Amino acid sequence: MSKPKQAGGRPRDSRVDHAIATAVRSLLDEHGYAALTVDAVAARAGVGKAAIYRRHSTKQEMIFAVLLHDLDEEPPGDTGSLHGDIAALTRRIADQLAQAAAEVMVGLLADIHADASLDARFSGAYLAVERSSIGTLLDRAVARGELPVRPDPVLVHVLLLGPLFAWQLMLNEDSARTPQLAEMVARIVTEALTSGAVSPEAR
Amino acid sequence: MSKPKQAGGRPRDSRVDHAIATAVRSLLDEHGYAALTVDAVAARAGVGKAAIYRRHSTKQEMIFAVLLHDLDEEPPGDTGSLHGDIAALTRRIADQLAQAAAEVMVGLLADIHADASLDARFSGAYLAVERSSIGTLLDRAVARGELPVRPDPVLVHVLLLGPLFAWQLMLNEDSARTPQLAEMVARIVTEALTSGAVSPEAR
Repeated sequence: MSKPKQAGGRPRDSRVDHAIATAVRSLLDEHGYAALTVDAVAARAGVGKAAIYRRHSTKQEMIFAVLLHDLDEEPPGDTGSLHGDIAALTRRIADQLAQAAAEVMVGLLADIHADASLDARFSGAYLAVERSSIGTLLDRAVARGELPVRPDPVLVHVLLLGPLFAWQLMLNEDSARTPQLAEMVARIVTEALTSGAVSPEAR
Repeated sequence: MSKPKQAGGRPRDSRVDHAIATAVRSLLDEHGYAALTVDAVAARAGVGKAAIYRRHSTKQEMIFAVLLHDLDEEPPGDTGSLHGDIAALTRRIADQLAQAAAEVMVGLLADIHADASLDARFSGAYLAVERSSIGTLLDRAVARGELPVRPDPVLVHVLLLGPLFAWQLMLNEDSARTPQLAEMVARIVTEALTSGAVSPEAR
Protein backbone atom coordinates (compact mmCIF):
# COMPACT_ATOMS: atom_id res chain seq x y z
CA MET A 1 0.00 0.00 0.00
CA SER A 2 2.90 2.40 0.49
CA LYS A 3 5.31 3.69 -2.11
CA PRO A 4 8.87 4.70 -1.34
CA LYS A 5 8.97 8.37 -0.34
CA GLN A 6 11.56 10.84 -1.48
CA ALA A 7 13.22 12.69 1.39
CA GLY A 8 15.87 15.25 0.56
CA GLY A 9 16.14 13.75 -2.90
CA ARG A 10 17.18 10.30 -1.63
CA PRO A 11 14.87 7.34 -2.12
CA ARG A 12 13.57 6.25 1.28
CA ASP A 13 15.07 3.00 2.55
CA SER A 14 12.21 0.53 2.63
CA ARG A 15 14.21 -1.83 4.89
CA VAL A 16 14.08 0.86 7.55
CA ASP A 17 10.31 1.29 7.00
CA HIS A 18 9.89 -2.44 7.39
CA ALA A 19 12.03 -2.61 10.54
CA ILE A 20 10.05 0.22 12.13
CA ALA A 21 6.71 -1.37 11.23
CA THR A 22 7.77 -4.75 12.61
CA ALA A 23 9.04 -3.16 15.83
CA VAL A 24 5.81 -1.16 16.32
CA ARG A 25 3.63 -4.23 15.83
CA SER A 26 5.63 -6.48 18.13
CA LEU A 27 5.99 -3.87 20.89
CA LEU A 28 2.24 -3.13 20.80
CA ASP A 29 1.53 -6.86 21.05
CA GLU A 30 3.93 -7.29 23.94
CA HIS A 31 3.37 -4.19 26.05
CA GLY A 32 0.33 -2.35 24.71
CA TYR A 33 -0.26 1.17 23.51
CA ALA A 34 0.59 3.25 26.57
CA ALA A 35 4.05 1.70 27.00
CA LEU A 36 5.14 2.26 23.39
CA THR A 37 7.82 4.93 22.94
CA VAL A 38 9.83 6.12 19.96
CA ASP A 39 12.96 5.13 21.92
CA ALA A 40 11.75 1.56 22.31
CA VAL A 41 10.85 1.33 18.62
CA ALA A 42 14.27 2.68 17.60
CA ALA A 43 16.05 0.16 19.83
CA ARG A 44 13.95 -2.79 18.66
CA ALA A 45 14.22 -1.81 14.99
CA GLY A 46 17.94 -1.14 15.24
CA VAL A 47 17.59 2.33 13.73
CA GLY A 48 18.28 5.81 15.05
CA LYS A 49 15.47 7.96 16.43
CA ALA A 50 16.24 10.46 13.65
CA ALA A 51 15.26 7.84 11.07
CA ILE A 52 11.88 7.54 12.78
CA TYR A 53 11.34 11.28 13.12
CA ARG A 54 12.17 11.82 9.44
CA ARG A 55 9.17 9.61 8.71
CA HIS A 56 6.73 10.39 11.52
CA SER A 57 6.43 13.55 13.60
CA THR A 58 5.04 11.82 16.68
CA LYS A 59 4.54 8.40 18.27
CA GLN A 60 0.85 8.63 17.39
CA GLU A 61 1.46 9.31 13.71
CA MET A 62 3.99 6.46 13.59
CA ILE A 63 1.45 4.02 15.01
CA PHE A 64 -1.35 5.30 12.79
CA ALA A 65 0.83 5.02 9.68
CA VAL A 66 2.05 1.52 10.55
CA LEU A 67 -1.30 0.03 11.56
CA LEU A 68 -3.79 1.93 9.41
CA HIS A 69 -2.35 3.78 6.47
CA ASP A 70 0.38 6.20 5.59
CA LEU A 71 0.21 9.48 3.74
CA ASP A 72 1.05 7.78 0.44
CA GLU A 73 -2.09 5.67 0.41
CA GLU A 74 -3.58 5.52 -3.07
CA PRO A 75 -7.25 5.03 -3.95
CA PRO A 76 -8.14 1.44 -4.96
CA GLY A 77 -7.71 0.75 -8.68
CA ASP A 78 -10.60 1.30 -11.05
CA THR A 79 -12.81 -1.82 -11.00
CA GLY A 80 -15.09 -0.44 -13.72
CA SER A 81 -18.09 0.23 -11.47
CA LEU A 82 -18.99 2.37 -8.48
CA HIS A 83 -20.06 -0.72 -6.56
CA GLY A 84 -16.79 -2.50 -7.29
CA ASP A 85 -14.75 0.53 -6.26
CA ILE A 86 -16.75 1.11 -3.06
CA ALA A 87 -16.52 -2.60 -2.17
CA ALA A 88 -12.73 -2.55 -2.64
CA LEU A 89 -12.37 0.54 -0.45
CA THR A 90 -14.67 -0.86 2.25
CA ARG A 91 -12.67 -4.09 2.38
CA ARG A 92 -9.51 -2.06 2.72
CA ILE A 93 -10.98 -0.03 5.62
CA ALA A 94 -12.08 -3.26 7.33
CA ASP A 95 -8.63 -4.80 6.86
CA GLN A 96 -6.90 -1.69 8.20
CA LEU A 97 -9.13 -1.52 11.27
CA ALA A 98 -8.45 -5.23 11.89
CA GLN A 99 -4.71 -4.43 12.15
CA ALA A 100 -5.22 -2.27 15.21
CA ALA A 101 -6.47 -3.82 18.44
CA ALA A 102 -9.39 -1.88 19.93
CA GLU A 103 -7.17 -0.94 22.88
CA VAL A 104 -4.63 0.62 20.49
CA MET A 105 -7.30 2.55 18.56
CA VAL A 106 -8.79 3.89 21.79
CA GLY A 107 -5.33 4.94 23.04
CA LEU A 108 -4.62 6.73 19.75
CA LEU A 109 -7.96 8.52 19.83
CA ALA A 110 -7.43 9.57 23.45
CA ASP A 111 -4.05 11.11 22.60
CA ILE A 112 -5.40 12.81 19.48
CA HIS A 113 -8.33 14.34 21.40
CA ALA A 114 -6.02 15.51 24.19
CA ASP A 115 -3.66 17.47 21.91
CA ALA A 116 -5.09 20.12 19.60
CA SER A 117 -2.03 20.29 17.34
CA LEU A 118 -1.97 16.51 16.91
CA ASP A 119 -5.70 16.61 16.24
CA ALA A 120 -5.27 19.26 13.55
CA ARG A 121 -2.40 17.38 11.91
CA PHE A 122 -4.34 14.12 11.99
CA SER A 123 -7.41 15.71 10.35
CA GLY A 124 -5.38 17.65 7.83
CA ALA A 125 -3.25 14.67 6.83
CA TYR A 126 -4.64 11.16 7.38
CA LEU A 127 -8.33 12.02 7.11
CA ALA A 128 -7.60 14.19 4.08
CA VAL A 129 -5.95 11.20 2.37
CA GLU A 130 -9.00 9.01 3.06
CA ARG A 131 -11.41 11.62 1.75
CA SER A 132 -9.30 12.24 -1.29
CA SER A 133 -9.41 8.51 -2.14
CA ILE A 134 -13.18 8.62 -1.84
CA GLY A 135 -13.31 11.72 -4.03
CA THR A 136 -11.38 9.84 -6.73
CA LEU A 137 -13.88 6.96 -6.66
CA LEU A 138 -16.80 9.38 -6.88
CA ASP A 139 -15.20 11.28 -9.77
CA ARG A 140 -14.83 8.01 -11.67
CA ALA A 141 -18.52 7.24 -11.12
CA VAL A 142 -19.50 10.69 -12.38
CA ALA A 143 -17.27 10.21 -15.45
CA ARG A 144 -18.90 6.82 -16.12
CA GLY A 145 -22.36 8.38 -15.88
CA GLU A 146 -23.26 6.33 -12.79
CA LEU A 147 -23.77 9.48 -10.70
CA PRO A 148 -25.13 12.82 -11.98
CA VAL A 149 -23.21 14.90 -9.40
CA ARG A 150 -20.44 14.11 -6.95
CA PRO A 151 -21.77 13.44 -3.42
CA ASP A 152 -19.88 14.93 -0.46
CA PRO A 153 -16.83 12.69 0.22
CA VAL A 154 -17.03 13.59 3.94
CA LEU A 155 -20.48 11.99 4.16
CA VAL A 156 -19.47 8.97 2.10
CA HIS A 157 -16.45 8.50 4.36
CA VAL A 158 -18.49 8.48 7.57
CA LEU A 159 -21.06 6.09 6.07
CA LEU A 160 -18.35 3.60 5.05
CA LEU A 161 -16.07 3.91 8.05
CA GLY A 162 -18.65 4.37 10.81
CA PRO A 163 -20.23 0.91 11.03
CA LEU A 164 -16.86 -0.87 10.85
CA PHE A 165 -15.33 1.50 13.39
CA ALA A 166 -18.22 1.07 15.86
CA TRP A 167 -18.21 -2.69 15.30
CA GLN A 168 -14.58 -2.87 16.38
CA LEU A 169 -14.51 -0.23 19.11
CA MET A 170 -17.83 -0.39 20.85
CA LEU A 171 -19.85 -3.40 19.94
CA ASN A 172 -17.45 -6.22 20.80
CA GLU A 173 -18.51 -8.07 17.77
CA ASP A 174 -17.11 -11.24 16.36
CA SER A 175 -14.45 -10.33 13.81
CA ALA A 176 -15.46 -13.39 11.79
CA ARG A 177 -18.55 -11.39 10.79
CA THR A 178 -16.59 -8.29 9.72
CA PRO A 179 -16.33 -9.28 6.01
CA GLN A 180 -20.11 -9.82 5.89
CA LEU A 181 -20.62 -6.38 7.47
CA ALA A 182 -18.17 -4.75 5.05
CA GLU A 183 -19.94 -6.26 2.06
CA MET A 184 -23.34 -5.14 3.36
CA VAL A 185 -22.07 -1.60 4.02
CA ALA A 186 -20.60 -1.37 0.51
CA ARG A 187 -23.90 -2.47 -1.03
CA ILE A 188 -26.03 -0.12 1.07
CA VAL A 189 -23.79 2.90 0.49
CA THR A 190 -23.62 2.26 -3.28
CA GLU A 191 -27.41 2.10 -3.39
CA ALA A 192 -27.65 5.29 -1.30
CA LEU A 193 -25.28 7.06 -3.69
CA THR A 194 -27.05 6.01 -6.87
CA SER A 195 -30.48 6.87 -5.41
CA GLY A 196 -29.29 10.40 -4.55
CA ALA A 197 -29.61 9.96 -0.76
CA VAL A 198 -26.16 11.46 -0.09
CA SER A 199 -26.02 15.23 -0.59
CA PRO A 200 -23.34 16.92 -2.70
CA GLU A 201 -20.83 19.20 -0.99
CA ALA A 202 -22.27 22.45 0.31
CA ARG A 203 -20.90 25.47 -1.57
CA MET B 1 -36.26 8.88 29.13
CA SER B 2 -35.85 7.13 32.47
CA LYS B 3 -38.61 5.77 34.68
CA PRO B 4 -38.32 5.41 38.46
CA LYS B 5 -36.87 2.03 39.30
CA GLN B 6 -38.12 -0.19 42.07
CA ALA B 7 -35.40 -1.30 44.45
CA GLY B 8 -36.37 -3.52 47.37
CA GLY B 9 -40.01 -2.57 46.74
CA ARG B 10 -39.39 1.15 47.35
CA PRO B 11 -39.85 3.61 44.51
CA ARG B 12 -36.45 5.05 43.65
CA ASP B 13 -35.98 8.63 44.75
CA SER B 14 -35.76 10.65 41.56
CA ARG B 15 -34.27 13.63 43.43
CA VAL B 16 -31.25 11.46 44.18
CA ASP B 17 -31.04 10.39 40.51
CA HIS B 18 -31.15 14.03 39.51
CA ALA B 19 -28.51 15.08 42.04
CA ILE B 20 -26.17 12.29 40.85
CA ALA B 21 -26.68 13.18 37.19
CA THR B 22 -26.05 16.87 37.83
CA ALA B 23 -22.91 16.10 39.83
CA VAL B 24 -21.55 13.78 37.11
CA ARG B 25 -22.12 16.34 34.37
CA SER B 26 -20.58 19.24 36.27
CA LEU B 27 -17.57 17.26 37.49
CA LEU B 28 -16.87 15.97 33.97
CA ASP B 29 -17.07 19.54 32.64
CA GLU B 30 -14.76 20.84 35.35
CA HIS B 31 -12.13 18.13 35.67
CA GLY B 32 -12.61 15.63 32.84
CA TYR B 33 -13.12 11.90 32.71
CA ALA B 34 -9.98 10.56 34.36
CA ALA B 35 -10.41 12.67 37.51
CA LEU B 36 -14.02 11.61 38.14
CA THR B 37 -14.52 9.35 41.16
CA VAL B 38 -17.60 7.96 42.88
CA ASP B 39 -16.42 9.75 46.05
CA ALA B 40 -16.36 13.11 44.28
CA VAL B 41 -19.83 12.52 42.80
CA ALA B 42 -21.23 11.54 46.21
CA ALA B 43 -19.76 14.65 47.82
CA ARG B 44 -20.96 17.00 45.09
CA ALA B 45 -24.44 15.42 44.97
CA GLY B 46 -24.76 15.38 48.76
CA VAL B 47 -25.64 11.68 48.80
CA GLY B 48 -23.95 8.64 50.30
CA LYS B 49 -21.78 6.37 48.17
CA ALA B 50 -24.23 3.55 48.91
CA ALA B 51 -26.96 5.49 47.10
CA ILE B 52 -24.74 5.59 44.04
CA TYR B 53 -23.74 1.92 44.21
CA ARG B 54 -27.39 0.87 44.56
CA ARG B 55 -27.90 2.42 41.13
CA HIS B 56 -24.60 1.82 39.35
CA SER B 57 -22.03 -0.91 39.95
CA THR B 58 -19.05 1.14 38.76
CA LYS B 59 -17.96 4.66 37.89
CA GLN B 60 -18.10 3.71 34.22
CA GLU B 61 -21.69 2.48 34.37
CA MET B 62 -22.70 5.60 36.30
CA ILE B 63 -21.25 7.85 33.60
CA PHE B 64 -22.70 5.78 30.77
CA ALA B 65 -26.17 5.82 32.37
CA VAL B 66 -26.08 9.56 33.07
CA LEU B 67 -24.72 10.68 29.70
CA LEU B 68 -26.08 8.09 27.29
CA HIS B 69 -28.92 5.97 28.58
CA ASP B 70 -29.90 3.90 31.56
CA LEU B 71 -31.15 0.35 31.71
CA ASP B 72 -34.77 1.52 31.72
CA GLU B 73 -34.56 3.08 28.28
CA GLU B 74 -37.71 2.37 26.29
CA PRO B 75 -37.98 2.13 22.50
CA PRO B 76 -39.35 5.30 20.84
CA GLY B 77 -43.16 5.39 20.58
CA ASP B 78 -44.84 3.96 17.51
CA THR B 79 -44.90 6.65 14.82
CA GLY B 80 -46.92 4.49 12.44
CA SER B 81 -44.09 3.77 9.99
CA LEU B 82 -40.70 2.10 9.95
CA HIS B 83 -39.11 5.28 8.62
CA GLY B 84 -40.70 7.38 11.38
CA ASP B 85 -39.58 4.93 14.06
CA ILE B 86 -36.03 4.66 12.70
CA ALA B 87 -35.76 8.44 12.37
CA ALA B 88 -36.89 8.89 16.01
CA LEU B 89 -34.36 6.34 17.24
CA THR B 90 -31.55 7.84 15.15
CA ARG B 91 -32.27 11.32 16.52
CA ARG B 92 -32.16 9.88 20.03
CA ILE B 93 -28.79 8.21 19.40
CA ALA B 94 -27.43 11.49 18.00
CA ASP B 95 -28.75 13.42 21.01
CA GLN B 96 -27.26 10.91 23.45
CA LEU B 97 -23.85 10.97 21.77
CA ALA B 98 -23.96 14.79 21.86
CA GLN B 99 -24.24 14.61 25.68
CA ALA B 100 -20.85 12.99 26.02
CA ALA B 101 -17.71 14.87 25.01
CA ALA B 102 -15.45 12.82 22.75
CA GLU B 103 -12.83 12.80 25.53
CA VAL B 104 -15.36 11.21 27.91
CA MET B 105 -16.47 8.59 25.37
CA VAL B 106 -12.86 7.65 24.65
CA GLY B 107 -12.11 7.38 28.40
CA LEU B 108 -15.15 5.15 28.91
CA LEU B 109 -14.20 2.92 25.99
CA ALA B 110 -10.61 2.64 27.24
CA ASP B 111 -11.80 1.50 30.67
CA ILE B 112 -14.32 -0.92 29.20
CA HIS B 113 -11.71 -2.49 26.91
CA ALA B 114 -9.22 -2.78 29.78
CA ASP B 115 -11.57 -4.74 32.08
CA ALA B 116 -13.16 -7.95 30.83
CA SER B 117 -15.87 -8.06 33.50
CA LEU B 118 -16.88 -4.46 32.83
CA ASP B 119 -16.85 -5.24 29.11
CA ALA B 120 -19.14 -8.24 29.60
CA ARG B 121 -21.53 -6.26 31.81
CA PHE B 122 -21.60 -3.39 29.35
CA SER B 123 -22.42 -5.67 26.41
CA GLY B 124 -24.94 -7.69 28.37
CA ALA B 125 -26.73 -4.65 29.75
CA TYR B 126 -26.49 -1.37 27.84
CA LEU B 127 -25.96 -2.81 24.37
CA ALA B 128 -28.70 -5.37 25.02
CA VAL B 129 -31.11 -2.52 25.82
CA GLU B 130 -30.24 -0.73 22.57
CA ARG B 131 -30.67 -3.87 20.51
CA SER B 132 -33.92 -4.71 22.22
CA SER B 133 -35.31 -1.25 21.31
CA ILE B 134 -34.34 -1.87 17.71
CA GLY B 135 -35.96 -5.31 17.82
CA THR B 136 -39.21 -3.68 18.95
CA LEU B 137 -39.15 -1.25 16.01
CA LEU B 138 -38.47 -4.08 13.58
CA ASP B 139 -41.27 -6.22 15.04
CA ARG B 140 -43.67 -3.33 14.54
CA ALA B 141 -42.61 -3.04 10.88
CA VAL B 142 -43.13 -6.78 10.37
CA ALA B 143 -46.57 -6.53 12.00
CA ARG B 144 -47.48 -3.59 9.70
CA GLY B 145 -46.39 -5.60 6.65
CA GLU B 146 -43.53 -3.18 5.87
CA LEU B 147 -40.93 -5.95 6.26
CA PRO B 148 -41.40 -9.63 5.35
CA VAL B 149 -38.92 -10.89 7.99
CA ARG B 150 -37.14 -9.25 10.90
CA PRO B 151 -33.59 -8.15 10.01
CA ASP B 152 -30.81 -8.78 12.55
CA PRO B 153 -31.04 -6.02 15.22
CA VAL B 154 -27.25 -6.25 15.74
CA LEU B 155 -26.67 -5.19 12.12
CA VAL B 156 -29.32 -2.47 12.24
CA HIS B 157 -27.73 -1.14 15.44
CA VAL B 158 -24.26 -0.84 13.93
CA LEU B 159 -25.62 0.80 10.78
CA LEU B 160 -27.48 3.46 12.80
CA LEU B 161 -24.91 4.04 15.53
CA GLY B 162 -21.71 3.70 13.50
CA PRO B 163 -21.74 6.86 11.37
CA LEU B 164 -22.79 9.07 14.31
CA PHE B 165 -20.23 7.46 16.60
CA ALA B 166 -17.38 7.88 14.09
CA TRP B 167 -18.51 11.45 13.32
CA GLN B 168 -18.13 12.36 16.99
CA LEU B 169 -15.08 10.29 17.93
CA MET B 170 -12.83 10.25 14.93
CA LEU B 171 -13.82 12.73 12.29
CA ASN B 172 -13.83 15.99 14.27
CA GLU B 173 -16.87 17.07 12.42
CA ASP B 174 -18.98 20.12 12.99
CA SER B 175 -21.80 19.16 15.38
CA ALA B 176 -24.05 21.62 13.53
CA ARG B 177 -24.16 19.02 10.75
CA THR B 178 -25.09 16.11 13.05
CA PRO B 179 -28.88 16.46 12.57
CA GLN B 180 -28.40 16.37 8.79
CA LEU B 181 -26.26 13.24 9.15
CA ALA B 182 -28.80 11.58 11.47
CA GLU B 183 -31.62 12.26 9.02
CA MET B 184 -29.58 10.87 6.13
CA VAL B 185 -28.61 7.74 8.08
CA ALA B 186 -32.26 7.11 9.03
CA ARG B 187 -33.33 7.41 5.40
CA ILE B 188 -30.55 5.18 4.07
CA VAL B 189 -31.06 2.47 6.70
CA THR B 190 -34.84 2.44 6.19
CA GLU B 191 -34.29 2.00 2.48
CA ALA B 192 -31.74 -0.77 3.12
CA LEU B 193 -34.22 -2.56 5.40
CA THR B 194 -37.14 -2.39 3.00
CA SER B 195 -34.99 -3.47 0.06
CA GLY B 196 -33.82 -6.56 1.97
CA ALA B 197 -30.16 -5.51 2.14
CA VAL B 198 -29.88 -6.31 5.87
CA SER B 199 -29.80 -10.04 6.61
CA PRO B 200 -32.07 -11.65 9.20
CA GLU B 201 -30.50 -13.16 12.31
CA ALA B 202 -28.45 -16.30 11.69
CA ARG B 203 -30.05 -19.38 13.27
